[in-house]
Amino acid sequence: MNNNIIQHIRKFIDLNDSDEVAINKYIETHQFEKKEFIMHEPKVCKHLYFVEKGCLRMYFINKKGVEQITQFALEGWWISDYQSFMNNTPSDYYIQTIEESTIVSIDNQNLDKLLNELPQLERYFRLIMQRAVAGAQHRSKLLYEMSKEEFFFHFSSSFPEFMLRVPQYMIASYLGLTPEYLSELRKKYI
Amino acid sequence: MNNNIIQHIRKFIDLNDSDEVAINKYIETHQFEKKEFIMHEPKVCKHLYFVEKGCLRMYFINKKGVEQITQFALEGWWISDYQSFMNNTPSDYYIQTIEESTIVSIDNQNLDKLLNELPQLERYFRLIMQRAVAGAQHRSKLLYEMSKEEFFFHFSSSFPEFMLRVPQYMIASYLGLTPEYLSELRKKYI
Repeated sequence: MNNNIIQHIRKFIDLNDSDEVAINKYIETHQFEKKEFIMHEPKVCKHLYFVEKGCLRMYFINKKGVEQITQFALEGWWISDYQSFMNNTPSDYYIQTIEESTIVSIDNQNLDKLLNELPQLERYFRLIMQRAVAGAQHRSKLLYEMSKEEFFFHFSSSFPEFMLRVPQYMIASYLGLTPEYLSELRKKYI
Repeated sequence: MNNNIIQHIRKFIDLNDSDEVAINKYIETHQFEKKEFIMHEPKVCKHLYFVEKGCLRMYFINKKGVEQITQFALEGWWISDYQSFMNNTPSDYYIQTIEESTIVSIDNQNLDKLLNELPQLERYFRLIMQRAVAGAQHRSKLLYEMSKEEFFFHFSSSFPEFMLRVPQYMIASYLGLTPEYLSELRKKYI
């Protein structure tokens, strides 16, 4: 059953067996094939998604009609369109599997119920969100101070597992490089 | 006393009078002159800061030795270097007042004590952090899909109060434009 998410929560707070039962009452776990959609625009994003196993990408379609990837998520990461989730507004995003994946999800109503039943989980989600804010601040600083080439090298050395699991054209989209240029960079420097 | 922060918390959770007393036991409130430093690199950022009144900017010094502004904070906003705060590592950032400001701060130890005494505040901080993640996602999407000029117009129409309160060279730094080019854009279009 959902081992990774329970282990993940236990890194931040204590859980006893009955807490675990309560959590499993409110979350759902689904298996997805490679390239399956977990979330579609223009639907409201009603869920937070946790990657038990596999890999996800989140993207929107830009004005030129091209997919623009804004985020990835590997095992142990949470992903969602938080604006859509919080405000109940349609999302511009797609979330899709890159590999066969096992995804845990919880919708806003069940999240409320879970947090009412186990208020100590507020702490877990507070710390997860705080970590996401720290990550976004760090990424924004890198984008201010690095050229796209430097960002690519930083990304390659920080996330070597990513580079092996994610197709090159997706990494190019995320980094704002053309696939051809990324391919040149890889040939030259890796 | 700290009216804005108490009102801000009450937007998200219920507080009674004794909760308010507990909060005031752990937070500190300081007055700052214009252009005073609230936080300096390379010190560890041990506080979360809430703007009761006034306006802050957060910046780092880039490789060219130039100040690069990454965030602003007006009344009712929280600001911090979350990576430094969470990991107890030295910060690269400066946080400085733009106007005379009243700033509420809480350090990590007092935050822990406060959350132990009033665990219902975990929910407040969870929602604040969730909102910050949503904001960062939104900003990142705008940066992917807009030119610097479009970002400037979006920023001007979304935050008209900001444009009046914050010096033009600071807005230029945040938007990654030269002050001269920003001045041209304002003359042409505003």
